[in-house]
Amino acid sequence: MMDTLAIGDAKLGSRLILGTGGATSLDALERAITASGTELVTVALRRFGHHTHGLLGLLERLGVGVLPNTAGCYTAADACWTARMAREAFATDWIKLEVIGDERTLLPDGVELLRATEELVADGFTVLPYTSDDPILARRLADAGAAAVMPAGSPIGSGLGVGNPHHIALIREMVSCPVILDAGIGTASDAAIAMELGCDAVLVASAVTRAIEPELMAGAMRHAVIAGRLARLAGRIPRRFHAHASTSESGRAV
Amino acid sequence: MMDTLAIGDAKLGSRLILGTGGATSLDALERAITASGTELVTVALRRFGHHTHGLLGLLERLGVGVLPNTAGCYTAADACWTARMAREAFATDWIKLEVIGDERTLLPDGVELLRATEELVADGFTVLPYTSDDPILARRLADAGAAAVMPAGSPIGSGLGVGNPHHIALIREMVSCPVILDAGIGTASDAAIAMELGCDAVLVASAVTRAIEPELMAGAMRHAVIAGRLARLAGRIPRRFHAHASTSESGRAV
Amino acid sequence: MMDTLAIGDAKLGSRLILGTGGATSLDALERAITASGTELVTVALRRFGHHTHGLLGLLERLGVGVLPNTAGCYTAADACWTARMAREAFATDWIKLEVIGDERTLLPDGVELLRATEELVADGFTVLPYTSDDPILARRLADAGAAAVMPAGSPIGSGLGVGNPHHIALIREMVSCPVILDAGIGTASDAAIAMELGCDAVLVASAVTRAIEPELMAGAMRHAVIAGRLARLAGRIPRRFHAHASTSESGRAV
Amino acid sequence: MMDTLAIGDAKLGSRLILGTGGATSLDALERAITASGTELVTVALRRFGHHTHGLLGLLERLGVGVLPNTAGCYTAADACWTARMAREAFATDWIKLEVIGDERTLLPDGVELLRATEELVADGFTVLPYTSDDPILARRLADAGAAAVMPAGSPIGSGLGVGNPHHIALIREMVSCPVILDAGIGTASDAAIAMELGCDAVLVASAVTRAIEPELMAGAMRHAVIAGRLARLAGRIPRRFHAHASTSESGRAV
Repeated sequence: MMDTLAIGDAKLGSRLILGTGGATSLDALERAITASGTELVTVALRRFGHHTHGLLGLLERLGVGVLPNTAGCYTAADACWTARMAREAFATDWIKLEVIGDERTLLPDGVELLRATEELVADGFTVLPYTSDDPILARRLADAGAAAVMPAGSPIGSGLGVGNPHHIALIREMVSCPVILDAGIGTASDAAIAMELGCDAVLVASAVTRAIEPELMAGAMRHAVIAGRLARLAGRIPRRFHAHASTSESGRAV
Repeated sequence: MMDTLAIGDAKLGSRLILGTGGATSLDALERAITASGTELVTVALRRFGHHTHGLLGLLERLGVGVLPNTAGCYTAADACWTARMAREAFATDWIKLEVIGDERTLLPDGVELLRATEELVADGFTVLPYTSDDPILARRLADAGAAAVMPAGSPIGSGLGVGNPHHIALIREMVSCPVILDAGIGTASDAAIAMELGCDAVLVASAVTRAIEPELMAGAMRHAVIAGRLARLAGRIPRRFHAHASTSESGRAV
Repeated sequence: MMDTLAIGDAKLGSRLILGTGGATSLDALERAITASGTELVTVALRRFGHHTHGLLGLLERLGVGVLPNTAGCYTAADACWTARMAREAFATDWIKLEVIGDERTLLPDGVELLRATEELVADGFTVLPYTSDDPILARRLADAGAAAVMPAGSPIGSGLGVGNPHHIALIREMVSCPVILDAGIGTASDAAIAMELGCDAVLVASAVTRAIEPELMAGAMRHAVIAGRLARLAGRIPRRFHAHASTSESGRAV
Repeated sequence: MMDTLAIGDAKLGSRLILGTGGATSLDALERAITASGTELVTVALRRFGHHTHGLLGLLERLGVGVLPNTAGCYTAADACWTARMAREAFATDWIKLEVIGDERTLLPDGVELLRATEELVADGFTVLPYTSDDPILARRLADAGAAAVMPAGSPIGSGLGVGNPHHIALIREMVSCPVILDAGIGTASDAAIAMELGCDAVLVASAVTRAIEPELMAGAMRHAVIAGRLARLAGRIPRRFHAHASTSESGRAV
């Protein structure tokens, strides 16, 4: 099935995006990337240094795209500066835009985020803002020209999954750009749920890199995203309070 | 990965079992079976008739095993009689034992079920009882010699998923035979959740056969069961109230 | 409002039943009982001894009824013997029937419980069996003559609340005797939820006696049970996916 | 217990605030207000007209305070203008500030809301902004001088309750001003949950005015808010995976 995901001018065959933070070694990361089937991996500019060369070489060798992020930025100004540095460093105008509002929850600051999105869109970036699950803010980001919106399921690294499925479903209704569930995924079913709610892709970092067996979890996420996507396309049965016999006498052909 | 599931004297490569009820045509069923990757399909003896020949021929052609069930039985005596008829009709001593307690919920009657399990085990059957999610009852069925226990996630055909994850996790702790989540699955994430809770397999019928696109949902379930199994084996990250930066400065190798 | 609860030949003004286990002193218990407004308190025969005299004196002084239980029994025979001892000791034919199936979860054994219920009903007891949340078992207990059924919300002392609201709602539909939510309540909203699901009363023990401030929690439970009861009687608004303006122009009088 | 709630320069004995929208008659509203025990009622300026005189007379007669709101405003400018009109009309500088972002969900627009809050605080208003459950936005509103923050549990009139308890708990941690759960309450347990999460008060409109029996539901909410408040103060027992016998032999005094 050619069920590709179009973001900006790119087309992705895999709907799973992997974060590299938390990986215990380049070797472990390589095995996780391969098991995940991902075609796009995030890298923090703030972590750019001698380690990064090995990482970029690995991604190039695996044929995986790089999505720089602005992790660690707390203001629009800081995030825009970081985005421009990343454009130089990684030779891409794609940016996963993070403007954090609080260091304990790492939740985004919507006001600063919108400001930075407007500025970077005007500057020619393909902007993917990491946002809260506030549907109105997501729509404003989309209206401001975001190439995709990336609502948090729950705080980064919390493993709490999709805290408010209703909000994710509302975001899906309210924007026409791709919706990528970012942050909070703890295990495979969380990723499947996100896709069933209508997300176009899922970003996973800690859930894979910090799992006891990252390679197995990467494979789990690969299958979960496919499962959720197919289920969304398939059209699920309605929920019923009582039973509905599958073997009722009426209306069956077999 | 040779992650086979042993039940009785059989080994299964797929951990997804498919029910045939609700399929709109033999052709639709064939496509669903193929997309699901299942190796075991349930068939109701009560539906044995001229239609069944086509079904059995199909299953034989696809190389898929038959698991007869006693759907429609309300007493231990009725279920045991039906099991013996099924043994003749399908030439197998495997039986998915259903003793229904109520026609609106189709939930099992535990007292009758335990009685029938004891009788059929003594009679040489490989008994897979469809039970409630009561952990104590599940353990009694296992102690009585059930080859696997099949707790309901929620009422048959309800699509409500795993109504009580805590009970399924307790059952996993309390029995040593395989646990197969049966009934109530509505979509892919429900199947993944069941596997993450420690179930060894999942049985799905209406969720596939009554989906708008059964073949797509069959594929979704195939991936969901693999995803949940891998996630269970991988060992998920713990849940945290606050964030946990994946890109913290400390303790990272990449 | 004369919204009394009839069980057997008794009428209760309060729909909160209190367990005495876990109380740190008779004085603390007295304050909790008073704050709770309860009219019925459970006492374990197994704990009958020199301590019990003080407890019974207290309950008599407060004008609160005694409901003996068979805590600690693992077979129907043991529970029936204990019930008969309790009838002598407490001079009441009411019995909260507990037949435990497992010491870690303290969940009831439905098969033994049904047997003991049948025997004690035949012996003239007013039997209130502590059961799982299995709707079929609850109906069988009611059919066997139970004066009320007492499904567990979740394991005793777990504080997990109502683990499976759907099952409690089904039990409410399937029996005509009173339904009393027993076990698992952790905080006030759990008790309110039980009542909103249609339970006629709630039994709380650890949630009060082991709270940091038992007297405050006893008051919380008193209000929660009243709140849930009134909400059930009031008839709640339906759940909607989108908003419904309270101040819409159409159809308002004020 | 003198557990009063201080907002701005006022002290409230009841932690339940009632919305008037949806009431079918002044008489029904009077009975609901009385049953609820509220001391503060919201009124939409947009509904100010010949009907409002009756309403204001009623509130004065009942000794209940008026909290004007800016329902129906979609921009900061519109909301500020409406707030100033309300100050004239109702002779109070308190304002429940609503800046709606979308007519189907009626969810607030955080960017406009923050702007309006800053302007009205500077203008001497006591501002209570109706916000999303985004913790960072709530903190920014508090930092901007809001007298209380009023996060939505779920969309207005949806009856979906507290959609994201984790966010409400985070807001409670992150601001020092009062937190008032606003919007989405469907039934009594929702209000109790909000209070248990640490909210200082709850605002309810449709859940009461559109219930089948508004007066009963008003009483339910009154008790639910008290129950949740007491439970929060009492300190609940921890959640456990397994049981914890209330009648264990060790460490009990009674």
